[in-house]
Amino acid sequence: MHTLPVVVINFKAYEQIYGEKGLSIAKYAEKSSLENDISIYVAPPIVDIQQYAKVLSIPVIAQHVDPVEASRNTGFITVEMLKSSNAYGSLLNHSEHPISLHDASISINKLKSMGMKSIVCAPTSEEASALSMLSPDFIAIEPPELIAGNVSVSKAKPELITDTVEKVRKVMPKMPILCGAGIKDGADVKKAVDLETDGILVASGVVMSKDPQKALDELVKAF
Amino acid sequence: MHTLPVVVINFKAYEQIYGEKGLSIAKYAEKSSLENDISIYVAPPIVDIQQYAKVLSIPVIAQHVDPVEASRNTGFITVEMLKSSNAYGSLLNHSEHPISLHDASISINKLKSMGMKSIVCAPTSEEASALSMLSPDFIAIEPPELIAGNVSVSKAKPELITDTVEKVRKVMPKMPILCGAGIKDGADVKKAVDLETDGILVASGVVMSKDPQKALDELVKAF
Amino acid sequence: MHTLPVVVINFKAYEQIYGEKGLSIAKYAEKSSLENDISIYVAPPIVDIQQYAKVLSIPVIAQHVDPVEASRNTGFITVEMLKSSNAYGSLLNHSEHPISLHDASISINKLKSMGMKSIVCAPTSEEASALSMLSPDFIAIEPPELIAGNVSVSKAKPELITDTVEKVRKVMPKMPILCGAGIKDGADVKKAVDLETDGILVASGVVMSKDPQKALDELVKAF
Amino acid sequence: MHTLPVVVINFKAYEQIYGEKGLSIAKYAEKSSLENDISIYVAPPIVDIQQYAKVLSIPVIAQHVDPVEASRNTGFITVEMLKSSNAYGSLLNHSEHPISLHDASISINKLKSMGMKSIVCAPTSEEASALSMLSPDFIAIEPPELIAGNVSVSKAKPELITDTVEKVRKVMPKMPILCGAGIKDGADVKKAVDLETDGILVASGVVMSKDPQKALDELVKAF
Repeated sequence: MHTLPVVVINFKAYEQIYGEKGLSIAKYAEKSSLENDISIYVAPPIVDIQQYAKVLSIPVIAQHVDPVEASRNTGFITVEMLKSSNAYGSLLNHSEHPISLHDASISINKLKSMGMKSIVCAPTSEEASALSMLSPDFIAIEPPELIAGNVSVSKAKPELITDTVEKVRKVMPKMPILCGAGIKDGADVKKAVDLETDGILVASGVVMSKDPQKALDELVKAF
Repeated sequence: MHTLPVVVINFKAYEQIYGEKGLSIAKYAEKSSLENDISIYVAPPIVDIQQYAKVLSIPVIAQHVDPVEASRNTGFITVEMLKSSNAYGSLLNHSEHPISLHDASISINKLKSMGMKSIVCAPTSEEASALSMLSPDFIAIEPPELIAGNVSVSKAKPELITDTVEKVRKVMPKMPILCGAGIKDGADVKKAVDLETDGILVASGVVMSKDPQKALDELVKAF
Repeated sequence: MHTLPVVVINFKAYEQIYGEKGLSIAKYAEKSSLENDISIYVAPPIVDIQQYAKVLSIPVIAQHVDPVEASRNTGFITVEMLKSSNAYGSLLNHSEHPISLHDASISINKLKSMGMKSIVCAPTSEEASALSMLSPDFIAIEPPELIAGNVSVSKAKPELITDTVEKVRKVMPKMPILCGAGIKDGADVKKAVDLETDGILVASGVVMSKDPQKALDELVKAF
Repeated sequence: MHTLPVVVINFKAYEQIYGEKGLSIAKYAEKSSLENDISIYVAPPIVDIQQYAKVLSIPVIAQHVDPVEASRNTGFITVEMLKSSNAYGSLLNHSEHPISLHDASISINKLKSMGMKSIVCAPTSEEASALSMLSPDFIAIEPPELIAGNVSVSKAKPELITDTVEKVRKVMPKMPILCGAGIKDGADVKKAVDLETDGILVASGVVMSKDPQKALDELVKAF
């Protein structure tokens, strides 16, 4: 269905990457994806998503989508808006944007019915296994205490990944699992691969890096 | 500060107006604004806001903005994103998207500090007067029971407008007041003008009309 | 751990059962529990919970608890408040009060660590299996469209129960499953038992009945 | 309507005051109220409210109430529940429990229609003046950065009080204004009185004090 491994770059709401600056990082990610034959998805701010999808050949995903109908609902983001913007899917339930299980279920199913992908974040192995029961396309494990920090989940909490992989695979044997929070260098990626995850979810480690291209290169080459 | 009266067109999340279809309505609004020398603002879905702002000379506003910093905050809409998209401002507290008073205060002040406008919706005259104390650029009175209906606020509940105008002007004498919910034809607009409001907030009456151009023409010419 | 089957009576926020009126229904439930040797839990309004727990020997549970610490947090309900009120546990995630998966996880774990029980509601079989991964003490399946209605889940949607039992037991073989929404008479209960659930969650069918004692008798005797 | 000044004691969710411990503080407050001829209201945890109201002659208020009907609505706190518990009213919009302006409006009006009082908190002078337009019975100004701290609003930010009094009284000349956050001793109270407020809202300064009676004495005697 999707070629693994996958590197997902979450641009968050960092002001530094709005518009052209972020787009140039995304273009480099596209180049890197083609050259290294590795899947790279980019998740820009919602205002930039249409522009990204227009110029890039790699998957562009939203950072969040609301569980509402494409009708009234002033100020919300619908799955249909993402579709009309040629987005590939959406992140859901990031620890900075937690949603109810019911809303997660609605959005996962709606994305699926419209041919789009869902990447659902979870802060603990227990919640990761719970969310995997909703059959998203990916589960991303991200302990909030490590997000945007300098210590990676694969080094600081390898048992969290091992535990998540075990719990999720027990109930959903083929669920692709991404590993996030604090991924900084190639050693982090190697560890994540060793622990049998299917890719990484990275944010500040690339987009807030002094040299985003070099930072991405190091991550990609470690696979 | 702004040329009154103002017609604000809220595109909501109606699927029918995503992309080109909505943009053509907005382009007609731009033409109408210039020909009739009347301010028209358009509020497209957030994914389309950048594209609208790129091709239009009339103000493009968001339907909502989150009270969060332009930093981490995955999946949120920041004032800075709107600024970088060349948006003119944002609607806030629409009855389909109610926010806390504190969040309204944060967003109004942040928009102001970045040179952008806020249009704050209220469902009752009491709440309109309360929100006017936060010094937004516009107050829009919209009784939720009339939204998307066939009976207009100016005909069905003229006392609601009279009452709002009185309560708001008592504490904020110069606050521009828009009148929304169910505005359908020129008679509604005339009534709104008679009741001393400074413009209208219209949604389905234009964007879901069989003939949006004709619908807009009728509203604009009634001023 | 708990004697099955279990009948949980949710008093909701119905004004008719505040104070003495509800307590007399609960006292009858206690009598019925002892006479019929069946577990009956009562979930009164939060203001009444202390009084119920003082006079009843059957388990008294809350209808909701907030995932916050017993410290500042003005206006919230803590697990510690329930403990100090001698409550036995709490319902969580009722479809009238949905919570995030993360909050469900926090509350289930906190209740467990303080020796109390959690009964987690789910509106679909998929969400029931997801929530069961958090290891609550009970899962209660309640399709919202049947709540407070006249058609019971066991008659109208038996496949929903069968499906839930199958999905939940596949990943959590020993998880007690309650069946709710529209349970009205003994036939509903028999059906629920036939479908291998471990009890029922009932609200208006008892507490809003013209004759709550008779209504409860019929349900209890059907086990 | 109410005898001013008023001292409101917010017990928050502090575990230390559940049950008898808090009730003994409340009983001392009752004694102090009678001896010093000053209004003292107590706001215990919601589980304790009925017991407090049963044994005390001073007003007992809730810390929060939900804007929902007394019907279905599992796990919510209704105004009717407070009424049936003989509560005198409720705090609303505490900075630890912010609510939408619309919900504030619903709850203020419902409390009023049932003969009960509302005390609405605001973190800034601007929001205080906005909320005063909803005609609650009291406005309480509480800058969140001072809550539970050691520096009082009257000493650290006297201009915040002066500003609030001015803004609120300009639009609502007779609105009683309480001053909260970090009130610790008699000097704080004297300052609050000098600045023309009508009382104080105190929490940790009394209920978490080593000697709550002495702490309350000092506050009360300063009026």
